[in-house]
Amino acid sequence: MATKVTSHDVALRAGVSRATVSIVLNKSDAVSLSDETRKRVLQAAADLGYTPNSAARMLVRGNTETIGLIISDPAILRTDGFIPQLLLGISEINREHGFHVLVEGLPLHPEKNPYESLVESRRIDGMIVLNPQSNDPDLKSLIDRSFPVVLVGSIRHPQEYSVNFTTRQGIAAAVDMLVDQGHRIIGTVPFSPKGQVATDVRLAALRKELARRGIDLPESQVEYGNSSAESGHMATLRLLRRHPQITAIMAGNDTIAIGTISAAKALGRSVPQDISIVGFDDLPFAAWLSPALTTVHVDAVKQGARAADLLIRLLRNEVIVERQIRLPTSLVTRQSCAKVPPRPT
Amino acid sequence: MATKVTSHDVALRAGVSRATVSIVLNKSDAVSLSDETRKRVLQAAADLGYTPNSAARMLVRGNTETIGLIISDPAILRTDGFIPQLLLGISEINREHGFHVLVEGLPLHPEKNPYESLVESRRIDGMIVLNPQSNDPDLKSLIDRSFPVVLVGSIRHPQEYSVNFTTRQGIAAAVDMLVDQGHRIIGTVPFSPKGQVATDVRLAALRKELARRGIDLPESQVEYGNSSAESGHMATLRLLRRHPQITAIMAGNDTIAIGTISAAKALGRSVPQDISIVGFDDLPFAAWLSPALTTVHVDAVKQGARAADLLIRLLRNEVIVERQIRLPTSLVTRQSCAKVPPRPT
Repeated sequence: MATKVTSHDVALRAGVSRATVSIVLNKSDAVSLSDETRKRVLQAAADLGYTPNSAARMLVRGNTETIGLIISDPAILRTDGFIPQLLLGISEINREHGFHVLVEGLPLHPEKNPYESLVESRRIDGMIVLNPQSNDPDLKSLIDRSFPVVLVGSIRHPQEYSVNFTTRQGIAAAVDMLVDQGHRIIGTVPFSPKGQVATDVRLAALRKELARRGIDLPESQVEYGNSSAESGHMATLRLLRRHPQITAIMAGNDTIAIGTISAAKALGRSVPQDISIVGFDDLPFAAWLSPALTTVHVDAVKQGARAADLLIRLLRNEVIVERQIRLPTSLVTRQSCAKVPPRPT
Repeated sequence: MATKVTSHDVALRAGVSRATVSIVLNKSDAVSLSDETRKRVLQAAADLGYTPNSAARMLVRGNTETIGLIISDPAILRTDGFIPQLLLGISEINREHGFHVLVEGLPLHPEKNPYESLVESRRIDGMIVLNPQSNDPDLKSLIDRSFPVVLVGSIRHPQEYSVNFTTRQGIAAAVDMLVDQGHRIIGTVPFSPKGQVATDVRLAALRKELARRGIDLPESQVEYGNSSAESGHMATLRLLRRHPQITAIMAGNDTIAIGTISAAKALGRSVPQDISIVGFDDLPFAAWLSPALTTVHVDAVKQGARAADLLIRLLRNEVIVERQIRLPTSLVTRQSCAKVPPRPT
């Protein structure tokens, strides 16, 4: 191993004091520094490779035995059925290890890296970030510096720790079933607007799986929902009015599917006789909807548990072999899908 | 005002040192004391009235700007649709005031008052307790000593701070509607087992409102669910098999109602033509179920927000006029209720 680089080395290279290095790397607000100085210190630290553990250790000062669950947009708590299960999984592992969980939204207009602010506040030792966005520079910088972060979702950063599902596997099974049932014109109602990582991942998987079977999914057959059953209902109305020939819809998640079912019925199409609908997540209510929802099963409680376990092991400096955990998905067949109806002649 | 009683007075009366008084009242584990000594100190403190603020202040040592949301049984996170909204309301107020929220389950077999342990750990300044149980001695003792606690629910303690709904108002409106529609044999599927405060309150309100209209609700027309749609489905099957003459069911909440609807359909009874179903909570998905659910509307986000606001004001020693806040409820009429079907002759 190379000799350990210290903040002294960074200070020398940047031509500043060690205190200045500490201020910059801690992103302290106590002293105001020019952007120029700040940049010089960061560049020097990067040049010398003074980043991973030393910087993280500086920031992770406390031993709070508390982890943060970061939900960038807490408003989705109003309608989302997934987060509570994730929280349950986290709580179960926390209880085993004597840890606690702080549920935190990101500030709307953070003045500095909001993740670091949280850790600096000594409220948490590390964090689980839900639905991370690939274009979040603060999050990326955290991972670059080996900060204790576990993603629920992925930003495809080679160094990330994350817990994800084999989304494509479950979607492939759903597409297989629909194609076998004769469906060729398939629409989809993603659960969040275009550009969000989780939605883009599911949409790309669906497109690829359909393409493998020679079926096209043009953008006009995609109508975006926004987490609520109501948004699923409205998006489905738009989709089916534009493309009445659609015979099957992949809903972005089970809550969206509630609205997709009601919209189809509102348009006089019974499910599954006239139109087939597939959900995603297999939330506990899915089996009891009318009709019982055929959906892609994921284990959200387990995802939370694995994320908490991974984070706690990170915080305890345990050796981690599998940085990016992939949990399986599977199709659960119930009553919301059927053979494509005969075309009217 | 009387002269302020100090720990010195308690020590004198109990015949122990001030350090011992502090150890007992802080419930510290650091030193082991005999039960006899412990009792003597507690008795002396009680005799002298050395409890309310002084003891609370001793325990509330930190200023963490973090509040705890205490969910006694975290397993309900798997299926409950109410808690996430409550959490959203708490988050919104916290964001305004720079506070944070720790979501915490109670240990299954706590060795000492689990609420105090939490505060002693310096992780939180005060707490919001969800679905408190009237027979919880630890919680009662906390409120006796003016500990910073806000209940979501009520244990009818005269000193409690709590945020509740005018449950009876909404249930009265639902009963009025059902009776007007000709329903006389009404069953109910509470959302949790018998004996839980929230369930008992809703059940008592329903019984009273039915009695006012000369309608009896015998225990045989009550089948308890347990938070999930599945439990609602199973309980409804039992209820309707035992009492096929029931023409309307009050579901304990909207998630239970999903299962109640599917169970009625499974028994060949269409909703609302053959049987009417009323939910409770008006969760965001309720309007999009099939049929759209008639339900008692409560504002869960607001309940969380008011509880957080009340707690933060308590922590800031602000004067609080309204200790027990009651938020309104109302009936939202949709498609799941209709006139009682004509009797088969």
